[in-house]
Amino acid sequence: MRLSEYFLPTLKETPAEAQIVSHRLMLRAGLIRQSSAGIYSWLPFGFRVLKKIERIVREEQDAAGCQEMLMPTIQPADLWRESERYDDYGPEMLRITDRHGRDMLYGPTNEEQITDIFRTSVRSYRDLPLILYHIQWKFRDEVRPRFGVMRGREFLMKDSYSFDIDADAAARSYNKMFVAYLRTFERLGLKAIPMRADSGPIGGEKSHEFLILAETGESEVGCHRDFIETDLTDQAIDYDADLQPIVDKFTARYAATDDQRDPEKEKALGDDLVTARGIEVGHIFYFGTKYSKAMNAVVTGPGGDQVPVAMGSYGIGVSRLVGAIIEASHDESGIIWPQPVAPFGVGLINLKADDGNCNEACESIYRRLGDKGIEVLYDDRRERAGVKFAEMDLIGLPRQLIVGPRGLGEGRVELKERKTGERREMTIDAALEAL
Amino acid sequence: MRLSEYFLPTLKETPAEAQIVSHRLMLRAGLIRQSSAGIYSWLPFGFRVLKKIERIVREEQDAAGCQEMLMPTIQPADLWRESERYDDYGPEMLRITDRHGRDMLYGPTNEEQITDIFRTSVRSYRDLPLILYHIQWKFRDEVRPRFGVMRGREFLMKDSYSFDIDADAAARSYNKMFVAYLRTFERLGLKAIPMRADSGPIGGEKSHEFLILAETGESEVGCHRDFIETDLTDQAIDYDADLQPIVDKFTARYAATDDQRDPEKEKALGDDLVTARGIEVGHIFYFGTKYSKAMNAVVTGPGGDQVPVAMGSYGIGVSRLVGAIIEASHDESGIIWPQPVAPFGVGLINLKADDGNCNEACESIYRRLGDKGIEVLYDDRRERAGVKFAEMDLIGLPRQLIVGPRGLGEGRVELKERKTGERREMTIDAALEAL
Repeated sequence: MRLSEYFLPTLKETPAEAQIVSHRLMLRAGLIRQSSAGIYSWLPFGFRVLKKIERIVREEQDAAGCQEMLMPTIQPADLWRESERYDDYGPEMLRITDRHGRDMLYGPTNEEQITDIFRTSVRSYRDLPLILYHIQWKFRDEVRPRFGVMRGREFLMKDSYSFDIDADAAARSYNKMFVAYLRTFERLGLKAIPMRADSGPIGGEKSHEFLILAETGESEVGCHRDFIETDLTDQAIDYDADLQPIVDKFTARYAATDDQRDPEKEKALGDDLVTARGIEVGHIFYFGTKYSKAMNAVVTGPGGDQVPVAMGSYGIGVSRLVGAIIEASHDESGIIWPQPVAPFGVGLINLKADDGNCNEACESIYRRLGDKGIEVLYDDRRERAGVKFAEMDLIGLPRQLIVGPRGLGEGRVELKERKTGERREMTIDAALEAL
Repeated sequence: MRLSEYFLPTLKETPAEAQIVSHRLMLRAGLIRQSSAGIYSWLPFGFRVLKKIERIVREEQDAAGCQEMLMPTIQPADLWRESERYDDYGPEMLRITDRHGRDMLYGPTNEEQITDIFRTSVRSYRDLPLILYHIQWKFRDEVRPRFGVMRGREFLMKDSYSFDIDADAAARSYNKMFVAYLRTFERLGLKAIPMRADSGPIGGEKSHEFLILAETGESEVGCHRDFIETDLTDQAIDYDADLQPIVDKFTARYAATDDQRDPEKEKALGDDLVTARGIEVGHIFYFGTKYSKAMNAVVTGPGGDQVPVAMGSYGIGVSRLVGAIIEASHDESGIIWPQPVAPFGVGLINLKADDGNCNEACESIYRRLGDKGIEVLYDDRRERAGVKFAEMDLIGLPRQLIVGPRGLGEGRVELKERKTGERREMTIDAALEAL
C-alpha cells in the first residue's frame, strides 16, 4: 500500500480526552475515530489489526474443534426472562423497543440465545460434545465509558459455548478452551496468565481469567515467577488427548487477580512472587446446568432419560486486545506491533521522493516484497525525512526499510528494527533477504 | 468435516411460516434459525456461505482500489439531525435511548457516519479520490419482516462511499463501482443486470440497481436479451483506465425496473425484449454534495478555495444474497450451490458406515481430498442410504461422491453432479482426478 493513497489520518496533537497510552496512540496513529462515547469507527489501519487478531483467534478455535456460526446483535427480551437475567442485568444492558412495542436488547453476551438454538436442534447425547462460537459485536452501556476500546460500549468479542452430557465431559471441554486460549495469546505475541476468578453475572462454579501484564493494567495481580520466565505450551497440542496435565501445570502455580489474592500464599512464595498490573483479555466459565435447567435444554441420555446439558462459556475480547497489545508494547515514540498482528510487516521509507534513483529503487523493492507476499506500507510522499521517521515510529510497523540518496549511491539501504531501534546498513539484496 | 460431528440441524418438515423457497430451504437445510421476527442466527453451514460471499465481495472491492474499514452499528442521532434525515426516516429506523437519555439509532446505512469521519480527517483535494467501505450489520425495522433473510430486519451489507473533488471525478468512481459490481456478481455465479433506478431515501442524481432474475423475484423487470445471453465482462479490468466504454456498453441496452419501464421502448425491442422477475442484490448512488454540504465536508481545492466533496454510495446485500442465490438456483430436492459460494465443494457419502471396506475407502478419499485443499463434508453417519441421498440433495453441495460396498467390490465409486443429476461410475483415482 502506498501511503500517498492510504487513508491514514494521523494526529500530531495528543487528544485531550484520552487518559491512557493505548487510547492516545490509537487515535494519533489513525486506528480509530470516536463516533460517540465508547463507540468507535475502525479506520483501515486499525481494521487490519482487528482482522489479524480475529484470524488468529478463529484458527485456534477451529483447531480445538469448535464450530463457527453467527448470532445476531439484537435479541428478544423474552429469552432473558426465561433465564431470569432480564431484570438482574441492570442499566448496562441496552434495552430497545421495536416499532411494534416488543422488548428487545443489544446482546451483551449470548448464553440465552445459544441455549435456545441448542434446545431446538439437539435431541441426543450422541450429538455431544459440541462447542459453538461466534465473533460478533456486543454492547454494554457502561455508565462512564473510557480508555478507548479497552472499556468501550460497542465491542467485538469471540464467545464460545460448550455443551456436554455431564460434568466430567464438560471439564474436558473446559480444558480444551483453557489450552486453546494459552495458544491463542501466545500466537498473538502475548504472555497471558490464567488466574482463578469470580464468575460475576455469568454465574457458575469454575472460572479463569486470562490476563496480560502491563504497567498500565487495571488491577494488581500476584503470580509465580514461572509464568513470566518460561514458555509452557511450546508443544503441539492434540485436542483429542487428555489435556488435564497441561491445565494442572498452569493451575498448580499461584496466580490470583486482585480480589482473589492470598497474602499467606504470596508470603510463602518469597522471591518467586511477581506482583504486577494486569489486563483481562479472556475469561472462561463453567456453569453446569444453570441455563439448560432454566431454559429446558435437555437431551436423551444413554439410559433414555432426559438430561439437562452441562455448559460453559468462553470469551476473548477481540477489540479490547488491540488496546491491550498497545498497552503492553509501546515506547515514547509510538506503537510497537508484535509481528503476528502488525497491520503491515514492513514500512518502506523513501527519503527523497523527488529523486529518480530513490523512486526507482523504492518501486523495485516495493514490487519485490509484494511478490514475496510481504505486506508493505510504502511512504512515497513528498515530506521531510523527520516527518516520515516520526510517523513510521508512531504507527509502529516492526521493521523499517530506509532508502536515501546518499546510501543508495553506495548501493546500500538501512534496515531498522522498531523495537530495539537498531539500524543496519546493507545492500538491497541483503535487506530483502533479511525480510 | 465429518457430518457425525457437524452441527447441521436439518428439518424434515417444511416450516409453516416460510412463504418463499429460499426461506424454506435455508431453514430446512440448517443454514439459519430465527431469533425473532426478521432476525436470524447463522448456523455453521449458513455462516460458511455468508463468509464466502463476503470474501468475494471484499476481493473485488479491494481490486477496485477501495479501502476497508468498519463503522459501528450504533450511531448518535445528532449526526442524522445534521443531514435532516433523522425525522424523515420514519419508523423503519430503530431508535434507541441510552442510559443517559441520549438519542441513538441502529444504523440502516452510513452516509452521515462516513461523512463525519471524512470531514475530520481530509483537508486537501490531493487526498482524493477516496473510496472507503465496510461490511457491517444494519437494521431496518420492517413493519412486516418476511421472506427470511431476503427482507429481514438485521442484515449484513457491504456499503462503500466515494469522495471526489468534482462531478467528473465522481463519475469515474461511480464507474469503478459499476464495473466492480458486475465482476462481483459474476464471480458469485450470478447474472446481475444493472438497471437505472430511483434513488429513494438516499437521494441523489444517478442510481443503478443490480438485479438477478429468478421466477420468485420481487417485481417484474424488462431488459434486452443480450443481458441474458452474453457475458460482457470476461476481460481483465484495469481500474486506472477509462471505464466509461464498459459502462456505456451496459447502459446503452434497455433494462428497467418495475417502476421505470417504458412500454414504447419495450415494443420497439420486439423479440429482443425479455421480461422476468428480478431480485435486487446491489444498488449504487451518485448524490453529489447532498451530505457534504449539509455536514460541511469540504476540502481545499487546487485554487485554494473550500470545495464540498462530491459523493456516492454503493451497497451490496451480503446476507440477502444467500437467499437470492437460492431463489435463482434450486430444484424440488433442495439447494444447488454455485461452486464459488458452496459451503463445501464435495459431499462424500458412505453408503454403509458399518462396513470396513467402505469406511477405509471413505477415510482415504476424505484425507486425500483434504490434502488437495478441497473442502469435503463427509457423511459418516449410520443412516439409511435414502436418508443420506435426500439430505445431501437438500443441502446442495455441487458434487457428491458416493461410496457403496457393491461398487467398491469392483474398485468403483459414483460421482454425481447435483445440478444435472448426472451420475458417473469411475475408479477412486479417476474421481479424485475429476474433483
